[in-house]
Amino acid sequence: MNQSRVILALDVTDCGRAMEIVSQASPYTAFVKINWPIVLACGPEIITEISKMAPVICDFKVADIPNTDRLIIEQAAKRGAAGIIVHGFTGSDSMEACVKTGHSAGTKVFVVSEMSHPGGRQFTAGHAEEIVRMAAKYGADGLIAPATRPERLAEIRRLAGDMLILSPGVGAQGGRAADSIRAGADYITVGRGIYTAEKPAEAAKNYFEDSLAAYRAKKNL
Amino acid sequence: MNQSRVILALDVTDCGRAMEIVSQASPYTAFVKINWPIVLACGPEIITEISKMAPVICDFKVADIPNTDRLIIEQAAKRGAAGIIVHGFTGSDSMEACVKTGHSAGTKVFVVSEMSHPGGRQFTAGHAEEIVRMAAKYGADGLIAPATRPERLAEIRRLAGDMLILSPGVGAQGGRAADSIRAGADYITVGRGIYTAEKPAEAAKNYFEDSLAAYRAKKNL
Repeated sequence: MNQSRVILALDVTDCGRAMEIVSQASPYTAFVKINWPIVLACGPEIITEISKMAPVICDFKVADIPNTDRLIIEQAAKRGAAGIIVHGFTGSDSMEACVKTGHSAGTKVFVVSEMSHPGGRQFTAGHAEEIVRMAAKYGADGLIAPATRPERLAEIRRLAGDMLILSPGVGAQGGRAADSIRAGADYITVGRGIYTAEKPAEAAKNYFEDSLAAYRAKKNL
Repeated sequence: MNQSRVILALDVTDCGRAMEIVSQASPYTAFVKINWPIVLACGPEIITEISKMAPVICDFKVADIPNTDRLIIEQAAKRGAAGIIVHGFTGSDSMEACVKTGHSAGTKVFVVSEMSHPGGRQFTAGHAEEIVRMAAKYGADGLIAPATRPERLAEIRRLAGDMLILSPGVGAQGGRAADSIRAGADYITVGRGIYTAEKPAEAAKNYFEDSLAAYRAKKNL
């Protein structure tokens, strides 16, 4: 892994284009984050293929009963996932199953604390604190907290201790790279801002520089 | 579709065995329900393959921002899904995107009201009523409500009006077929009770008969 603070959210379903974007942007990204649509379009082999260029976080928003959570994470790890994103609102037993399975399979587990879209305020925001505490209790590696709401991000950082925070919503959704890092993010997640850019490598490089400068300033590096 | 009230939850990751179980049990099942582990193990083509024998419900517990929800449902529909299961706790905008996309793709959309495992009580149970009302408002085809808690199932039936109710948790998780139908389910979901049986066809036939008898008695057929 390089020193980048950027996670590329590869939310495309054109398989050839996906690989092309990764090959251009990967020098500037810490992780490539993929979601279910690309798996349904290109097959689970895409996890393995991308992993050859950059560590892959499977943003699968795992939200099931413990036994199914376990099977999803095992299968994703087998395909090469370096990390997996799970929901917390499915409760303690599901969370525990996710973290245990991820760690025994060598995969990091990140927990959604609250979601970045408007509907995220309806149910998830009200339980964010409980979910953060639960994630810490069961040893999750990090949290997902919205770059679109820096005041919430700062609050979640306060609760999160030294857990990593990954912030989606930078770029097209309105979040700003440096602001998110300052508010508490360790990594920013950028999708359309890179993959719809005319030159994905250049766009990725800009996010890379902005976020790394803010990160270094914050950490006094 | 036959007159069965049984949904086979095909929670296996051995691809050959999966097809074998479907071919044996499908005369007694209304739908075959699959989840992410089998997609990760066998590839998304499995949706299309199973659909040749029985209508497939993709139990994908979709729980993302509206744009991703849309892409997941479009891709599942393309592969042949007859129905898809989504979460409600992601809020109104996600729910609306799911139902609209499902219906324009010809796929039924079922919403998880609360979950059948112990962790389901922690967060989802407290919001079940709001989620049921939201599902009705946006025109979802049905709800998922736990066979393991018949008193909750009856309460959700009271709120659900004429929406379909699909009840997981029959068999190994402790729910009983006829009781669940009487409490308000239109379909019962059975997993291990069929797929780990020595004779899956015979096991499926037993659930078929018990649930159909209870359903006919309830509906005065």
